[in-house]
Amino acid sequence: MEKFKVTPWDVKGAVDYSKLIKEFGTEPINDALLSRIKKHTKELHFMLRRKIFFCHRDMSWLLDEHEKGNKFFLYTGRASSKGGVHLGHLIPWMFAQWMQEKFDAEMWFQFPDEEKFLFSKDISLEETEKSTLEDALDVIALGFDSKKTHFLIDTKHAGLMYKHACRVAKKITLSTVKASFGFENDANIGMIFYTAMQAVPAILPSVLKEKNIPCLIPLGVDQDTHFRVSRDVMPKLGYYKPAIIHNIFLPGLKENGKMSASDTNSAIFTTDSPKDVESKIKKYAFSGGQASVEEHKKKGGNPDADVSYQYLRMLLEQDDKKLEKIYNDYKSGKMTTAELKDITIEKINAFLKEHQKKREQARKQLDRFIYKEK
Amino acid sequence: MEKFKVTPWDVKGAVDYSKLIKEFGTEPINDALLSRIKKHTKELHFMLRRKIFFCHRDMSWLLDEHEKGNKFFLYTGRASSKGGVHLGHLIPWMFAQWMQEKFDAEMWFQFPDEEKFLFSKDISLEETEKSTLEDALDVIALGFDSKKTHFLIDTKHAGLMYKHACRVAKKITLSTVKASFGFENDANIGMIFYTAMQAVPAILPSVLKEKNIPCLIPLGVDQDTHFRVSRDVMPKLGYYKPAIIHNIFLPGLKENGKMSASDTNSAIFTTDSPKDVESKIKKYAFSGGQASVEEHKKKGGNPDADVSYQYLRMLLEQDDKKLEKIYNDYKSGKMTTAELKDITIEKINAFLKEHQKKREQARKQLDRFIYKEK
Repeated sequence: MEKFKVTPWDVKGAVDYSKLIKEFGTEPINDALLSRIKKHTKELHFMLRRKIFFCHRDMSWLLDEHEKGNKFFLYTGRASSKGGVHLGHLIPWMFAQWMQEKFDAEMWFQFPDEEKFLFSKDISLEETEKSTLEDALDVIALGFDSKKTHFLIDTKHAGLMYKHACRVAKKITLSTVKASFGFENDANIGMIFYTAMQAVPAILPSVLKEKNIPCLIPLGVDQDTHFRVSRDVMPKLGYYKPAIIHNIFLPGLKENGKMSASDTNSAIFTTDSPKDVESKIKKYAFSGGQASVEEHKKKGGNPDADVSYQYLRMLLEQDDKKLEKIYNDYKSGKMTTAELKDITIEKINAFLKEHQKKREQARKQLDRFIYKEK
Repeated sequence: MEKFKVTPWDVKGAVDYSKLIKEFGTEPINDALLSRIKKHTKELHFMLRRKIFFCHRDMSWLLDEHEKGNKFFLYTGRASSKGGVHLGHLIPWMFAQWMQEKFDAEMWFQFPDEEKFLFSKDISLEETEKSTLEDALDVIALGFDSKKTHFLIDTKHAGLMYKHACRVAKKITLSTVKASFGFENDANIGMIFYTAMQAVPAILPSVLKEKNIPCLIPLGVDQDTHFRVSRDVMPKLGYYKPAIIHNIFLPGLKENGKMSASDTNSAIFTTDSPKDVESKIKKYAFSGGQASVEEHKKKGGNPDADVSYQYLRMLLEQDDKKLEKIYNDYKSGKMTTAELKDITIEKINAFLKEHQKKREQARKQLDRFIYKEK
């Protein structure tokens, strides 16, 4: 098996999530935790039922606080690059939107528009600033409550954030970030500092309201390193460590790892046309089927390895029964790869049609979401 | 001779300025440059005549640009600590104020209120923020033109500055700052990034006016390291390298090095009372005189080693003839140490009386000096 790699900037190979839990020191999400969440939310989000969110830090503590009447806020983010938002990005955001609704929680959404600029040779700040405003539309389109959702754009909100980033930075040594992120001497000094900016939204609401408020961060497990470093700092500044809930990666069309915007033929973007989607799925979506229809009918397919099926499971088919039927039919060979791909194409296009409509409507709402200092 | 050390955070020992010129790679200020400056200013500031400003970078280029009609702006700063402003801090600021007047130049004055917080274990941000507002009064009291002077306070103006600090930071590697500043693995990541913030005011006016404007930075030679690092970055971003003019250090009362706010008995602060000044000079000011008055009358004193005399030469006695007389009388033994100290006490107190009055009046003007985004 290919050795996998998961860092905030690079995910490679077939990720072994059990191994990751051990390496990162997170806790797996178990049934006891799920039923405890369900007590509050009545139903469980399909991403929880299906363990798309698979591990966490301090969720039990967060629920303790919630049960004591100590409300938490949500924090997640998007570091814009040249490529736009793809389906994989939506997983933590859709889940966060659901959590906002169920727990009536404030959401602080960070757009660190300096991040990709600092970490990538060929992206300008003008490019990341522009795509930040585009990507923000995708977030709004998912249905966040404008009254309870605050966008922080690092370069624009630095007047609010930099000071607290310095408070965090003072408690993080060079040797810690070198060990945690693998920085070498050729790293630029913006990269070295950046993790302090990513820590700020986890404490900023507490700063602004002058009381200690619990925080929950839903995000892809590749970002865990940042919070492994900064969670230890928070109590030293008088704040709670944020709780975290991590999702697995939506696979790219061609690969087993993580959908990535850098290969446009391996990702489905939220702005793709129905034709784009059809052609990408038909041409590139890795199939768990057999070499010929005859063989497939005889031996059956492997839905667990099939990318189209994974898109249905992780994002598009929320009905467990329908999903189970697809699973069984594909596994038995009753459903061909072409049929499975057709279902997936239809589902994606139905979702994107609605999403793109809301995304355009979001242009007028954008200003309401951007945090304004009181 | 004790080995001396000059870094942005630490000055120790008897500084050999000729050696520093070689080590730092600056140019000594020679008579040709002085007469070229005089062509524009009519008279020469006593700090130029007396080589208190002793070395520079690119001053000839700056005057070339000026003569082509390409006006320059001034930039200097103050990193506030627990201790307030002392006489040594005033040297580059008084000179900068004179330059502003003579060249009708804009002044961008940086107050990096995060600097001492990041570099010192026992200073809080609340303390540096508070003393920044106090120290700003000293700057205003020196007579800067409120219409042409803009205060940048790092934590408050980060919304304007952080973005450009990232542009600078992307071009500075960890190995460069380690070599230049001597950072080890126990340095915090805010210290690593900080030099990028100190670079920003040298390019910000060019950013805001969307044209490339020459910059002159008058400052203590201990700060040179920051600009040795960032000057190389500016052209890569499309801006001129700033010119720099460096002054030598005002000695502390007890020592041969640099007046430092950390030993209150070795520094004269701008808020000291006449009694404080009298007692500090009488008690601590290192004397170039002999052990007894009789011996002094016979052998004469050494004004070059006498701290009181240095205060007159570097800051308080602008009249060359009066200064020369004091020099000769002290050297011959005609003037005793007590008499020299009395003159110095009187001069300092006359200056501080006026300065403290203006300093209090400055409270009302402060808001006008703080840069407001258009």
